[in-house]
Amino acid sequence: MTPPDSITALVGRLRQGDTRALARAISLVENDAPEAPALLSACFPSTGRALRIGITGAPGAGKSTLVDRLARAFRETPEGRDHNKTVGVVAVDPTSPFTGGALLGDRIRFQNYQGDPGFYARSMATRGTLGGLALSTADVALVLEASGKDVILIETVGVGQDEIEIARLADITLVVLVPGMGDDVQSLKAGVMEIADIFVVNKSDREGADRVEQEIRALQSLAPDHPVHTPPVIRTTATTGDGIEALVAAINEMQQWLLQENRLGARRAQHWRRRLDAMLRTELMRRARQNGFDAKILHFHAARIASGQQDPWQLVAQLTEKVFAPGNSS
Amino acid sequence: MTPPDSITALVGRLRQGDTRALARAISLVENDAPEAPALLSACFPSTGRALRIGITGAPGAGKSTLVDRLARAFRETPEGRDHNKTVGVVAVDPTSPFTGGALLGDRIRFQNYQGDPGFYARSMATRGTLGGLALSTADVALVLEASGKDVILIETVGVGQDEIEIARLADITLVVLVPGMGDDVQSLKAGVMEIADIFVVNKSDREGADRVEQEIRALQSLAPDHPVHTPPVIRTTATTGDGIEALVAAINEMQQWLLQENRLGARRAQHWRRRLDAMLRTELMRRARQNGFDAKILHFHAARIASGQQDPWQLVAQLTEKVFAPGNSS
Repeated sequence: MTPPDSITALVGRLRQGDTRALARAISLVENDAPEAPALLSACFPSTGRALRIGITGAPGAGKSTLVDRLARAFRETPEGRDHNKTVGVVAVDPTSPFTGGALLGDRIRFQNYQGDPGFYARSMATRGTLGGLALSTADVALVLEASGKDVILIETVGVGQDEIEIARLADITLVVLVPGMGDDVQSLKAGVMEIADIFVVNKSDREGADRVEQEIRALQSLAPDHPVHTPPVIRTTATTGDGIEALVAAINEMQQWLLQENRLGARRAQHWRRRLDAMLRTELMRRARQNGFDAKILHFHAARIASGQQDPWQLVAQLTEKVFAPGNSS
Repeated sequence: MTPPDSITALVGRLRQGDTRALARAISLVENDAPEAPALLSACFPSTGRALRIGITGAPGAGKSTLVDRLARAFRETPEGRDHNKTVGVVAVDPTSPFTGGALLGDRIRFQNYQGDPGFYARSMATRGTLGGLALSTADVALVLEASGKDVILIETVGVGQDEIEIARLADITLVVLVPGMGDDVQSLKAGVMEIADIFVVNKSDREGADRVEQEIRALQSLAPDHPVHTPPVIRTTATTGDGIEALVAAINEMQQWLLQENRLGARRAQHWRRRLDAMLRTELMRRARQNGFDAKILHFHAARIASGQQDPWQLVAQLTEKVFAPGNSS
């Protein structure tokens, strides 16, 4: 895959810290432009060194403020600490015709970083297909990484399957809870508790922080496959910044732990297995569409199936047969 | 696709109302057995007449009790009404190592229907891949339909992308809310509000039912694409049964509306477009696995990608090339 000159030039510019080139590259990836694979391929050699942190949790848990605080903590340099890192943020934000999406909100949210070349934030809306969002989020994170960011914060809005999938592609996953959830910790979407490397009890100045922590501990003790690394529980109040230092320390500790015994490498290999599978799926469908599985054909057959004139399983068998042996079809 | 004799016999038995055959067929479909496509294909001619109702909403909204009440309302025959319908329930319930899943809970939940041949309920756990759950839920609903059930209730636990996808495959979708959500109606996962044909405010004996209804109305008025059919808001208290009659009436009314101007046919054709796309995707991957995309190969390449030795985009291009022209590969 030889990238066209324009892509090589674009990647060259974004690697040198050109923010406009970075913004343009991310747009190409987010919009699944035809150049996207070549662009990502050209970015790939410059990646692998950044720490990718996923932040997930129920809506209303204060994740945006927390991500803001974390970004600042990594950007700023307290005396004697090695926190001065460049930061990229991907805020995954499914838009809705009802809410109009949060893009405007994000523009307001991140405007105080303007002029800081070591920071770049981007909101992403949901892409059409299931699973597509996790893939394009990981792609955007890769472009941010190629632009030289040391830390990539990947924030998801909800706790559904998509968000779990996104968080799974990070090196370290924070699951954010809040007091007042009480027994509802258990009602969190299955899979969310399992992916946590660090639990954050945010808004912990509110009553009930003890109880949430107890709930987490209780669920941890019930887990049949007890993880090697028991996730710590960190209390924060993102609005005031309380606990952010402890959270950064827990992240650093987790990072050190991951760097031992090639744990990070093993984890990333596992991510790439999932991602490769998704990439292959997407590419196969793209190729299949070129081989006659286009929207018009599907439209035609769907109407026939809905009225009982066509058996969908027979159709799928016929259509895939045609794709896998295109020479035999008319 | 000629089904093996055993599948033909199994489908014959389930069509005659044999509950054991039904249970076995559902298991084959849920476990994605090799016989599943032939089984579904054999079921297909006996489907198309049932009404499929999706029930979704945030955890804790009382959906289980509501589904219970709805099932009873359809099963029982109040004087002068035509409610005596057979009912199938699919409760989609992602299991978690932390909670152990709700299968036991469901067994307790539905035990009072034992001995009623006109009722069958089944819990389903999450399948591995994204999007796979919606597909297998729709498949299970199809088997229930072939067994002669008039109404299929499809209950989902959460409000994530998977649940939206599942609800989208129903003929009529109920979105269940509860008082006390207040402004949080807006924080419902994007996409949930849009799929509602009927809003149910459950636990409406609690304070705040008015407010939730107002929130729904406010969001409806904001919707840029105002639907042709403005979804009614029905208040229920599932624990006492209050409002269930009104809900059944709203469902019947919606069904009548759908039967006009071929709206149901158009909606089902749209469902089949989505479903065909997912079926093709799944089948292509199955075929690709047979052509060398197996777990071992992916495992090998993922480790090389994670250590920066292999470019994933180049790899995907090579691998798909091989699948689409298998004769040219070694």
